[in-house]
Formats: sequence, structure tokens, C-alpha cells
Amino acid sequence: MMKNRANILIEALPYIKNFYGSTIVIKLGGHVVVQEELLEHIVRDVVLLKYVGMKPVIVHGGGPEISRVMEEMGIKPKIVDGLRVTDEKTIEVARMVLIGNVGTKIVSMIGQEGVKAIGLSGKDGKLFTAKKKGTKRITVEGEKREIDLGFVGEIEEINPEMIEIVTEKSLIPVISPIGIDSDGNSLNVNADTVAGEMANKLGAQKLIMMTNVPGVLRDTNDEDSLISQISPQKAQELIKEDIIKDGMIPKVKACIDASKDRVEESHIINAKREHSLLLEIFTDEGVGSMIKKDN
Amino acid sequence: MMKNRANILIEALPYIKNFYGSTIVIKLGGHVVVQEELLEHIVRDVVLLKYVGMKPVIVHGGGPEISRVMEEMGIKPKIVDGLRVTDEKTIEVARMVLIGNVGTKIVSMIGQEGVKAIGLSGKDGKLFTAKKKGTKRITVEGEKREIDLGFVGEIEEINPEMIEIVTEKSLIPVISPIGIDSDGNSLNVNADTVAGEMANKLGAQKLIMMTNVPGVLRDTNDEDSLISQISPQKAQELIKEDIIKDGMIPKVKACIDASKDRVEESHIINAKREHSLLLEIFTDEGVGSMIKKDN
Amino acid sequence: MMKNRANILIEALPYIKNFYGSTIVIKLGGHVVVQEELLEHIVRDVVLLKYVGMKPVIVHGGGPEISRVMEEMGIKPKIVDGLRVTDEKTIEVARMVLIGNVGTKIVSMIGQEGVKAIGLSGKDGKLFTAKKKGTKRITVEGEKREIDLGFVGEIEEINPEMIEIVTEKSLIPVISPIGIDSDGNSLNVNADTVAGEMANKLGAQKLIMMTNVPGVLRDTNDEDSLISQISPQKAQELIKEDIIKDGMIPKVKACIDASKDRVEESHIINAKREHSLLLEIFTDEGVGSMIKKDN
Amino acid sequence: MMKNRANILIEALPYIKNFYGSTIVIKLGGHVVVQEELLEHIVRDVVLLKYVGMKPVIVHGGGPEISRVMEEMGIKPKIVDGLRVTDEKTIEVARMVLIGNVGTKIVSMIGQEGVKAIGLSGKDGKLFTAKKKGTKRITVEGEKREIDLGFVGEIEEINPEMIEIVTEKSLIPVISPIGIDSDGNSLNVNADTVAGEMANKLGAQKLIMMTNVPGVLRDTNDEDSLISQISPQKAQELIKEDIIKDGMIPKVKACIDASKDRVEESHIINAKREHSLLLEIFTDEGVGSMIKKDN
Amino acid sequence: MMKNRANILIEALPYIKNFYGSTIVIKLGGHVVVQEELLEHIVRDVVLLKYVGMKPVIVHGGGPEISRVMEEMGIKPKIVDGLRVTDEKTIEVARMVLIGNVGTKIVSMIGQEGVKAIGLSGKDGKLFTAKKKGTKRITVEGEKREIDLGFVGEIEEINPEMIEIVTEKSLIPVISPIGIDSDGNSLNVNADTVAGEMANKLGAQKLIMMTNVPGVLRDTNDEDSLISQISPQKAQELIKEDIIKDGMIPKVKACIDASKDRVEESHIINAKREHSLLLEIFTDEGVGSMIKKDN
Amino acid sequence: MMKNRANILIEALPYIKNFYGSTIVIKLGGHVVVQEELLEHIVRDVVLLKYVGMKPVIVHGGGPEISRVMEEMGIKPKIVDGLRVTDEKTIEVARMVLIGNVGTKIVSMIGQEGVKAIGLSGKDGKLFTAKKKGTKRITVEGEKREIDLGFVGEIEEINPEMIEIVTEKSLIPVISPIGIDSDGNSLNVNADTVAGEMANKLGAQKLIMMTNVPGVLRDTNDEDSLISQISPQKAQELIKEDIIKDGMIPKVKACIDASKDRVEESHIINAKREHSLLLEIFTDEGVGSMIKKDN
Repeated sequence: MMKNRANILIEALPYIKNFYGSTIVIKLGGHVVVQEELLEHIVRDVVLLKYVGMKPVIVHGGGPEISRVMEEMGIKPKIVDGLRVTDEKTIEVARMVLIGNVGTKIVSMIGQEGVKAIGLSGKDGKLFTAKKKGTKRITVEGEKREIDLGFVGEIEEINPEMIEIVTEKSLIPVISPIGIDSDGNSLNVNADTVAGEMANKLGAQKLIMMTNVPGVLRDTNDEDSLISQISPQKAQELIKEDIIKDGMIPKVKACIDASKDRVEESHIINAKREHSLLLEIFTDEGVGSMIKKDN
Repeated sequence: MMKNRANILIEALPYIKNFYGSTIVIKLGGHVVVQEELLEHIVRDVVLLKYVGMKPVIVHGGGPEISRVMEEMGIKPKIVDGLRVTDEKTIEVARMVLIGNVGTKIVSMIGQEGVKAIGLSGKDGKLFTAKKKGTKRITVEGEKREIDLGFVGEIEEINPEMIEIVTEKSLIPVISPIGIDSDGNSLNVNADTVAGEMANKLGAQKLIMMTNVPGVLRDTNDEDSLISQISPQKAQELIKEDIIKDGMIPKVKACIDASKDRVEESHIINAKREHSLLLEIFTDEGVGSMIKKDN
Repeated sequence: MMKNRANILIEALPYIKNFYGSTIVIKLGGHVVVQEELLEHIVRDVVLLKYVGMKPVIVHGGGPEISRVMEEMGIKPKIVDGLRVTDEKTIEVARMVLIGNVGTKIVSMIGQEGVKAIGLSGKDGKLFTAKKKGTKRITVEGEKREIDLGFVGEIEEINPEMIEIVTEKSLIPVISPIGIDSDGNSLNVNADTVAGEMANKLGAQKLIMMTNVPGVLRDTNDEDSLISQISPQKAQELIKEDIIKDGMIPKVKACIDASKDRVEESHIINAKREHSLLLEIFTDEGVGSMIKKDN
Repeated sequence: MMKNRANILIEALPYIKNFYGSTIVIKLGGHVVVQEELLEHIVRDVVLLKYVGMKPVIVHGGGPEISRVMEEMGIKPKIVDGLRVTDEKTIEVARMVLIGNVGTKIVSMIGQEGVKAIGLSGKDGKLFTAKKKGTKRITVEGEKREIDLGFVGEIEEINPEMIEIVTEKSLIPVISPIGIDSDGNSLNVNADTVAGEMANKLGAQKLIMMTNVPGVLRDTNDEDSLISQISPQKAQELIKEDIIKDGMIPKVKACIDASKDRVEESHIINAKREHSLLLEIFTDEGVGSMIKKDN
Repeated sequence: MMKNRANILIEALPYIKNFYGSTIVIKLGGHVVVQEELLEHIVRDVVLLKYVGMKPVIVHGGGPEISRVMEEMGIKPKIVDGLRVTDEKTIEVARMVLIGNVGTKIVSMIGQEGVKAIGLSGKDGKLFTAKKKGTKRITVEGEKREIDLGFVGEIEEINPEMIEIVTEKSLIPVISPIGIDSDGNSLNVNADTVAGEMANKLGAQKLIMMTNVPGVLRDTNDEDSLISQISPQKAQELIKEDIIKDGMIPKVKACIDASKDRVEESHIINAKREHSLLLEIFTDEGVGSMIKKDN
Repeated sequence: MMKNRANILIEALPYIKNFYGSTIVIKLGGHVVVQEELLEHIVRDVVLLKYVGMKPVIVHGGGPEISRVMEEMGIKPKIVDGLRVTDEKTIEVARMVLIGNVGTKIVSMIGQEGVKAIGLSGKDGKLFTAKKKGTKRITVEGEKREIDLGFVGEIEEINPEMIEIVTEKSLIPVISPIGIDSDGNSLNVNADTVAGEMANKLGAQKLIMMTNVPGVLRDTNDEDSLISQISPQKAQELIKEDIIKDGMIPKVKACIDASKDRVEESHIINAKREHSLLLEIFTDEGVGSMIKKDN
């Protein structure tokens, strides 16, 4: 069995070489971060990537956890005609939960594995600024109305210097998707988007979205309909054709955006599958769906 | 009036020279950080210190804010015979509020003033580790009992490298008093103690405790009984004599501890007095109480 | 009164921010440097600028002092048809007075204020090279003649590396306007020109000419005729129209030249007005005349 | 099978952490370097160590190869009463073979695996100086005689700067055991000794002797008599007791010497066992014999 | 006589100034390196260049030495129709002799003069890669045949970083002309070509070929027919006209190639003439032939 | 003749090696700096030292030049009972002449030779501080009186950082012996003392006093009475015995002081002898007198 270990290390060598020194942006979905044991396994995988010479950068979500705390605080989600509105109370909870709870927990787990990490949000060293998405036009009973989405933002500018400062000191950055606008307001930014734009800005070699589904499915009820590889153009079409839908849309869009510029390979994989992160990096087959330009 | 401004700048010059390049640890008490406008003023003062060449390091508390959120979440403080017990739920809230809410708000305000800041807790880059305070022996109705204080910690080791990394890059560190023990648990550490030990470890020139009282009073009902300057020895005596009591004790003790080693001057000042921070640094008289060894 | 000081420091904060890290070239005129007490006040103002994060660079003149020493040495100014000729004796005195007396005195005064300075002329580290202005054609009694201006030079090349070496080590450079030509001759260069070209080469944010007049006056006998702001184009016209004349011409020309390229704002201010340097930098109104492009 | 790979990588993580950043001196014996395929496997193992964060330093022998070339050149080994004498011709061949053939081949193989290496002998950057061992006293037919061992040396001084220069640039140093004496003569130094002293000077965490035997055997004819772990003291005794003998003596002595000072663990392992180097580092059991102080 | 020494040092000053900080590539021919005493003199000259501020880089040949060792090993040169074929045995000997013998000897001699040197071949730090020259078409008895030249290579890519690493640390690099191809084979590369391409890549100020002839001769039997200076164009013509022929061709071609790009002056000089290297650098007349573009 | 040059360069090599990287403090006496052509020759020698790897530091005097200018200004030396008193006028002239005239001229000459230099006095970067020597007790007509020597100082503290900053940037520092006291007064310090203390503080390998006499003479009228080498102890005795006297005393004392600590060899040599500086450094015999401890 010992010999087996040695053989496998040697089999992994070409993959280690290939990604040596590479920045890998890993997005941990909101459903992933609430599963303590699962998260511990993923963190250990991330730490392995760090030790074999890669530069992992974590971006996390936290929707379910925000909902749980809001519930505990007796705050009802404000839904206007099906659209969630992030009022002042909601953003306060989001900020507390994402930065103070989820981000901190991940930093702490990485520390337990012997590697230093640091929690960062858009405010720290002005890592990224955001602006309010503003209003959305909807039609209610034939009447056009505009509703203000509140403290929901989109990224305006990324200042990657902060990431460079900490990775140079061998820290793993753990990014919570809270931005700041020019008035100093906290804004909730979609974590998929943050991961995608961060990967792009950092010139990451890979963007890996760790979700609770196997990847992009043609039929969401059939795991066998998994699309292993798809070009950004084709992915765009599938969105239009409503084959890619709901929560998968921002993930795929983030991958498409990342692939436009510097990131060659983006992946949507199932976090629940054991070691899916390692399998993605250390095998040729990979797991889940890869968004990659046709050559 | 313009000439007045120039004159006063020149009057400030000797103080600027004196503290040029010095590390100043500033502790913002829990009652201070909940007053938005007051906090904004203090942040502006801190930013001024930064611009005229000092290296401010902020440590903040947050008791009242933690209580508020716990109340909103319907969590009752667990009091056993007068002692507050920090159970798992409480530490979770403390962590969220201190790191995600208070620390983040201060970082954000500093950013609004044009200076970069970064929020740090004990977990980030392993800034400080802590261990549980453990049990406390009490006597209830003639019977001796031990109660477990829960997730309350005391500092075990400070790793100041993280502070050096960020101050070198001209960021102001904002420290939330959440430590981590060797099992990865979050522990609530007294912010006064964190400030005192941090000042000591960093070799700060000054430790300034910004509170909601004028300083150390002989008679807490009489502001005229303020003690302007006191030696650590004398302060120790006043604690024994029960003249310094309650919440003032950890503040004074932190100052005494800091003065033992490298910090020459510690101050307890009234945050509510306008520009009290600047007055402390830029005038000979200062404000509040100074703990300083007799020569 | 103490509170007033704090308030004013906070009022100064936006100006401090604005010029943080900026290079400010300050030219001290020959009439300024002979007034010991006045010079001490200006030096203190310069030291303040240094402490609040600017990089002051001083260029000084010294005409009156040169004249005084020449007189003491019994040397008569050589005037040919109204033009001053700098013969070998004159340049020797100029060099001694400017470098050995005036420059050294300023360096010494800055040192007394606790900041290190260094005296530099064109020769030190080849800061700037010059070439002889050569001959000037004049008409005497209807007859055309050429007179050799002697050891008077104009700047050929500035090598700003020397300034960077010393400012990087937190020294304030004090530049005497003596250049060196390719034959090793010392040449007297107009200090206004040195200041202007140095400001330009260093990419200074401001060039400040400290003179013994209130600024550019439409009528030199009427201080109320001060022109607060003027564009380089307009200033050029006023020179042509003979409204700007005599000793003001090289000052204004230096400002015009500086504004052509990288220096946005040039100022001609009255050194005798108390703290005029600080007032220029720390107030919106400023003092004296500003040469600035129209937007 | 893919999952197996991931599991094993995670199992290897604690070992990777443990040796991260450590210097590992690996001595490749003369019988090892002549087996092309075996050498290729070992080189791949060394490259893996490099990629997972260790700093391997290779020292090689080459006795059999030297003998082969001497034979081809028709040079007969000069044996005086059983002692091999290194005359001028022999040292020339040794130098050519060790530096030009063996060292260069290893450098080349490492290069093929995508990592830069550099061949060094004692002369390069004065890595190590040596002095002649001189004469040895022997008794021939009752008569005492002294024979000069010729160009055989022992290390005088190691200058590890050269190793630091190249490892800092991520090159793997490959050291040939040819030293230089103060007269400029090349001297053949025992490779085991070079490895031991180099490990000691570099403060290596491990010294690994890769040989063609399973380790230290109590009975050289019985592989089951392998001593898994032994203290330096006990090893010394076994040498005295003639249980450790012949070619094993310099290997064990080098390990004993290394353990005296800074190297905690020295190993003698069988190079022919597949991946023995990895097994030694990535398993608790290890392979071969370990020389380690009792605690 | 003492005064004479001082005068001559001062006479040398302009030459020292002129080449201060310059890279000088010096090629030592195969006939030069076998003459011990001559080599010692040249090494001393090279060390002088180093001490007066130049950066010498040595490239050496070694044909006669390879032949000698091959003969001793009883290996017959494989000549097919007048063309030397480098088979596996030959390249092995070439590698041993060039790297292990010649290069090492030069490094050692430089060390004896108090300066550190380092032996490098194409494999070390991947200094240069090569590819096989392949086959050559010849006509034998009216029949066309292709013969494989074997392990003879031409440079593919130079990676000068290795030279910069060592010269930055004040080491003199000594380059042996053994390259490596993409399959890991050692290839013998013409040393003249290596010197020329290295000089070009390093932007050397001079390339100096030290040979056993006085320079380029119009008539190889008449030393008076030396061509002191020639343009690359003219040199090319002389090759075509068969005036430059045999072993001189690669030398002149290397000089022509070097002059195409960045190297202004290339020289072919007689190593046997005492101090010819110094005479070339420290006198206006120089020695031997200079290839230099017409202006 | 060309060959002669090469031979002599090689003869100089051991001396170059010996002083490579050494700091050499060279004091140019007041009688030396007034002889333009002589000074030019010495400067060229200094530049040679720089180019062959030494770090020359120049300290200059200027007595005769000060006297000349004072005369021209009609200032009479103030002599009280045989002691020269440096009043305010005198120090002003000394400052102008030493810094503005002599120092600047030397900097300029070095620049003409293609090397950058920088003029420094005690004030520049606070290179050295001084304090007034104060009063001297004398007896006039049997009556004891104290006279104030005025602005004459002795060194209090040397801050060699300034020298390191400029030599690191390859500039030659030229030091004028004007110090500054704590009140900001300029003080004239003996140049021999400045040279001696500077050599000591910098850990110079040699201190060379360039004077207008052949060295230390037993009989000042007999050049044949030159003492080639003398120990500091013996030199002290000769001062007591009045054999060493007058202006030679401060020179010898400076050498004695320097030798006490870190400077091994101090020399007093005749600047007028052609290339005496080079002869001192590049020959075994040297010139003039050497003060060196007996071994």
C-alpha cells in the first residue's frame, strides 16, 4: 500500500507541474459553506493545492446562512413582486453573516490545517468597490413599476493589490462578497460575479465554482445529462434557450465573463462529491462542467 | 483667520515631530462604536494622525451592539449567579457583530476618509491565539460551585507580523477582539486586554483607551475628582482600595500591564469630548488620565 | 483654545491629503535669504510640509549677498553698457556665497528644526549641467557690438537622480544655482530658471516662488492691482505688453515654462507675509499670484 | 481509481507540511548512478520533492564509472599493499567522470523533468576546499612503511553561499565530490563525507544515503537482519565491534557526524527499491535504516 | 621604476573608464587551453579585467584535448568521406573532457588568483539548448549519400539568466560548449558559435577570440599579411573568395554574426602573444584582427 | 612599450586585489588645494583608485585660501597673544571658502574625470557635529588670562550614514571641515582631525595625509632624515621630545588616533611628488612616513 502512495504521487507530478505557481479562484457556494464536515474536507483540499505550489483564492457565498439568521432575528424577507429587496436591516445581517460568520469560519478552518489565511471583503484595502444596481422595471397587473433593489451592488472596480500583498506573504485570501459604494454603504454583491471578475483581474489559470449540483445539466432532473465541456458561445445560447436557468445562470455567466479575457478554463463542479476539487485539478477527465473556448 | 490656521499648524509641529513614526494603539470602547457621528469624528482624527506620520492601530469593543443583536434574535444572556456565560450561540453572535458589523463599519469609515484600512481578528494570519479562561469558582448559598465561562478567552500568543505587513503597506489595522484556540474555537477576548497586550508587543509609544467617562475618577459621581496622572503602582493600590472599580478595572489593568514593559504612556480619555484624541496628542496638558511610571 | 487647535488641524486635513507625497519646489529669492529671522520662519514652514508628508525641494538665490561680499572685497561690478558681466572673480564670489554661505545657512537652519538637509549645486552628482549664454548683441552709439556675458549659464541637462537619492533618505535638498559646463567652469544660473526647470523635471505638483513682492501686479506701485490667477498665455501677453517687467519677468517665465509640461500650479508669493507658504498650501484662497492653465 | 488518487494526495499532506521548505541532502551512490533507468526514477522522485516545497541537494559518487573509464583508457589501478593510490592520471579521470559525465547526466535528467539544475564541484564558487589526506602508515613484511595516498582529500571548509544562491533561484544543486586544495590541485573526496558535511553545514532536515543495500544489516548476508533505527552511539559501537564494516563504514560515519550537530535524521536506504526515497519521506514506517539520537 | 608604474596606471585609466561595467566574452581556443603556463597567464589577465570593473565571460574549446583522451581510450575518430561523425562514445568523451577537465581546470585557475568562478554548460540552469545539425549530403563516387553527423548541435535558444545570476554574485562564468537537446541528449556545439551567440545575447561590448594564429591573414603563410580591421561585409566576401578558410571560417562567422546585432567590436587575436588580451583592451592599436562595421 | 603597459598592469594586480572594496580616506592639505595643476593630478589618481575598486573619501583643508580671501576682504586675522581667534567674520569666510570654493572645485574636477562626486560639510545630513573648543588659558606678562578661541570646534559625533548613502551610489564624497554645534553655529574644525576621526569611524583601511613635506622628518631641514615607518607610541614620544612639531603635530596626532582603533596604516606623504598617492598604494616601498603599530 505504501508503494501505491508513492506511485500515485508520481502520477500527480505532471498536474502539479502544470499548475505550479498558478492562481486558482475557488468559489464556495452558500449551500456548501453551511455543511461543516464537507467544508472541512474542501479546506483540506485547498490547503493541499497551496502546499504543492498553487495560489488558491477563495470567494464564498452564504445565502442560506443569511436566511437562517434573519429568521432567528424575526426579519421577514421583503419580496416585491417576486423580487427580493435588500433593505438596511437585510444588508446589516448579510454583512455580519458573510464577513463575521462564514468568512471567519473558513479562515479559522484553514488555520487549523496549518496555513495562514485572511478574511477580506471589498472594504479591506479597498479590494473592490461596488455601485447600487438600482431599480428594476417590472410590470404588475399591466402597470409598469420600478422597484429599488436596495443595497444590492455590482462591482465597479477591483484593486487586486491587496490580494498580491497577502499571497506574497503566503496567506490564503478568503473573500466575502460585500462591497462598498462611494457613499460608504455596504452592498451585497453576487458571489459568483465576484469570483468571476476576481479570477479575470488576477489572471487566474482556473476558476472553479463549487456548487451543490453536478454541473451544467441539460435536464436538471437527470444527472446523466451533464455537459462535460462547453464553449462560452454555446453556453450563452443555452441560457437564451432556457436550458440553463435559475441559479445556474449567474454561475455560467461568471464563467463566460471570465473566459472572455484571461481565464482559460472555468469549472462548475459538485462540492458534495468527495475531493471533487482535487479530481478536477489532478485528473485529465476532471469532474463537472468545464467552460472553455473552442480552439 | 487664515493666518490663525497657519500659526496653529506651526504650534502643532513639535508634537508632530515627537510622534513621527510612532505606533499609537487606540482602543474604541463598545459605547463609542455605536454612536455613528461620534465614531466618524474619531475616525477623522485617526486619519489625521496617519497623515502626519504616526501609525495608528485600532482595537475595538462592542458589548452594547452584541446585546442589541442578541435581543433581536431573542437570545437571553445566560447569567449564572451573576456571571455571564458565553455559550455557543453567544460567541457566534459576538463574532458576527464584532468582525462583521463593528470592525467592518470602522474600516469602511476610514476608507471614506481616503485611507485604506483592513479588518483583522485573531484568526487572520494568526494575529493572536487565545485559550479558554475556563471555570470560575463561586459560592452559592454556602455551597462551592464551579461554573464554566464558556467561549471567553485570554490571549496566549500575539504574532505581530500581520500588523507589520499591513502598516508597511500604509493600511490602518482595525482589530476585533475575537481569538482562536488550538481547537479552532472562536473565543471572545476582552478588548481592553487585547489593546494593552498589542501595544506592548508592538512597542507602541502610546496606548489610548477611548471610553465614555472622563478618565479615572476618585469618585465616579464627581467629574472633578479626575486623576490626571498616576503611576502604575498607585493605580494598583487604588484597585485594591476599591476606588477604581467595575468596568474601569480592565482598562486600568491593561494600562498597568502595558506600562510594565515598553509602552511609556497609557491614557484613559473621554471619547465624547470633541477631538479628545487630538487634544491628548497635540497638547501638553492632554485630557483624561495618564498612567505613567514616576521617574 | 486647545479645542481650537484640534479643529484647525482637522480643517487642514483635506489639504494635507491633497498634497501627501507631492514634490513642492520652493524658490527662496535673494532678498529673502538675507533676512535671518524671516528665513527661520520660512524654514519652519518647510519643515512642517515635510512632516505632513510632502517632499519640499528648495532652490535659493542670493544676489544681494553676492553684492555685499563683492563690495567687501572691493570688487566693482563690471557693467558694459548696462549689462552685468560675470568675470572670473565674480563667479568665484558667487560660488562661495551661494554654496558656502547661503546654501549652507539654509541647510543648517533646517537641521536646527530636527530634519536633515543637504546642500547641492549643479556639480554634486552632476545634478545639472549648464552652458555659457555667450555673447549678447547690443547697439552702442549706433554701432553694433557683441559683449561676452562671461560665466553666466543656462541649464543644459538636469539629472534628477541625485534629488531622488536624497529625498528617498528623507533629506531636504537645498539647491544653489551654480552649474558646471563641459569644460568644468562654474556658471551662475538664474535661480528662478533652475527652480522652474527642476520643478518640471521632478514632476512637482507645485512651484512656489517666494519673493519680496505680493505677486504679479498690474501696477507695481499698487498692491491692490494684484493678479490672483492668470493663465500662461495671458501672462505671456502681459510680458509683451510690458506690464510684467524687470525682475518679475524671469519669475513669470519660469512659471510659464513649468506649466507647459507637468507642473499644474505655479505661484509667486510674498515671503515677508507671515506663513505665506502655509497659507498658499493650506487654504483655498491662497496668497499671491497663481499661474495655471485655463481648463 | 481517480478518487483513490485524491485520497492518497490528502494522506500525503501531513508529510508535505512537515518537510515544507526543508533542505534534504540526497547522496546517490556510485552503483546507483550507473543504472540509467533507476536513476531516471530517482530523479523523478527528487523533482516531486522539489515541487511539493522541499529543497533537495544532490551529492553523487561514481566509483564504478571511474573504474570503467580507467579500464577503457588502459590505466591500471595503483594498489600498494591493498591501498588504492590516486595518482595524477587517476584524479584526472575521476574529475572528468564525476563532473563531466555523472554530474552532467544527473543535471540533464532533472532538466528533462522540467526543473532547472546546476552541476557544482568544490571549485565552483569555492563550494568546498580540501586538503590531501597525505600518507598512511602500513606494515609490510614486518617493516613499517608510509605510502602517499596521492590526490585523495578531506574537506577543509565548506562555503554554502553557492548553494544558497542557486536554491534561491529554484535550481537543484548537483554536487560532484571533487575538491580543490590551496595549491589548486583537484582532490577526490569521499562522496559520503561530502554529503554528511554538506547536510550539516546547510542545516538539512534529513540526510538520505541511497545505496545498493537495504540499509545497515547485522549480517550482510541476511536482509532480515536490517536495523531499522539506531542511535549514533550504538552505531559507533557496531563499527568497533566489526558488525558495520567495509563500504558501510563511511556511510554510517557520515550519518553519525551529521547527527552530532544539526541534522536530526539520517537514512541509509536501498535505491533499487522502487520509490524508496518517497517512501522514506511520505510514510511513517520509512525504509532502510535511520540513524537518530535517542531522546 | 616605481614612477613608471604609476604613470602607466594613469595611462590605462581612459581604457578602464571606457570598459567599466562592460561584458567581455572571451573565447579560449582548444589549442590554447592545453598549454598550462599560457593559460595561467591568460587567466591572470582575465582576473585583472574583472578587478578593474569589467565582466568577463569565458567560453572555451578543447578539440586537441578530446583527441588526446580518445586516443588514450583507443577510440578511433569515425570519419565518413572526410566528415567527422560524433557517435555516442565520442560525445561522452567530449562531455567529460570539456566540462570535467578543461572547464574545471580554468575555474580552478581563476580560483587560485583569488576570484570565484563557476563552470557551466548548456545544461546548467538550461543556459542554452541545442538541436542536432542532422545529416549532410555528400557525393561519393558519383553517388549521392546522406551521412548523419551524430551528436553535433547548433544553438537553439540561449537563456542568459544563469549568466546574470552568477555575474551579479561576482563569479566569472566559464562556459563549456556542450548543449542539450529536447530529448536530453548531449550535443557538441562549436565553441566559436557559442561565444558569438552568447556575446550577442548578453549585449557584450567586445567578443575576443583567443587563437593560435595572429589573426585573419590574407596569406596564412605570411604573418605580415594580417588584416588589422575589416568590416563584416568585407569578411564575408573573403570567405567566399576562399581567402578566409578552414578553422578560421567559424571564428570569422561568429564575429560577423555577433556584429550584426549588438556587439560592436569582435577580435581574433593570438593567445600566444604575451598579454595579448590586455594589449587588445588597453591600447589604441590593439593586436590581431578586428571585425567592426564601417561607420 | 605596449607590452610594458600590460606587464605593469599585471604587476599592479596584487595591490588592486589587496585594496579592492577598501575605504581610503585621503586628506588634501591647504597648500595642496591651491595648486590647480597639482590638484588635477591628484584627482586623477583618486579617480583611478575608484575605478579599480576602492572607495576613496576626500577631506580637504584650505588655510592659505582662507587667508587670501580674508586679505582681499581687508579682514585682519585677530591674534591675541599669538593665538588666532576665529570671530564671526572669520568663520563666515572660512565657510564660504572651504565649502563654496575649495570643496566645490574638487567636486568639479572629479566630475571632469567622469566620476560623480558630492561636496559635504558637517551640516549635510548631519555628517558630523562639533562643539566649541572654548577658551584657552595663557599667561601674558606674568598674568593669567583666558581667551576665547571663538568659532573653532572639535568633533562631537560622526554620523557616517551620509557617506554610506553616497558611496553606495558610486559618488566620491568630498568633505569640507565645517561642523555645526547644537546652537546651529558653524565651527571651523581642523581638517587633519576630521580625516583621522572619519577614517576611524568608517573603518578605513588606510588614512593618507597629502602634505607639502616629504613626511615626518627628524630634522625639518634635512629631507634625508625622513622616518619611513614609526609606531604610534614612538610617534607620541617624538612629539613630547619636540622632534615632531608645529603643523606636523595635528597630522601625526590624527594618525595616532586613527591607529588606536580600526585603521591599520596611516601615511603622511608629499603631495608634490608626482603620483605619490599611487606609489603609496601600488608599491611595497611606499613613499613618505607610515604610522603603524608594531606587531
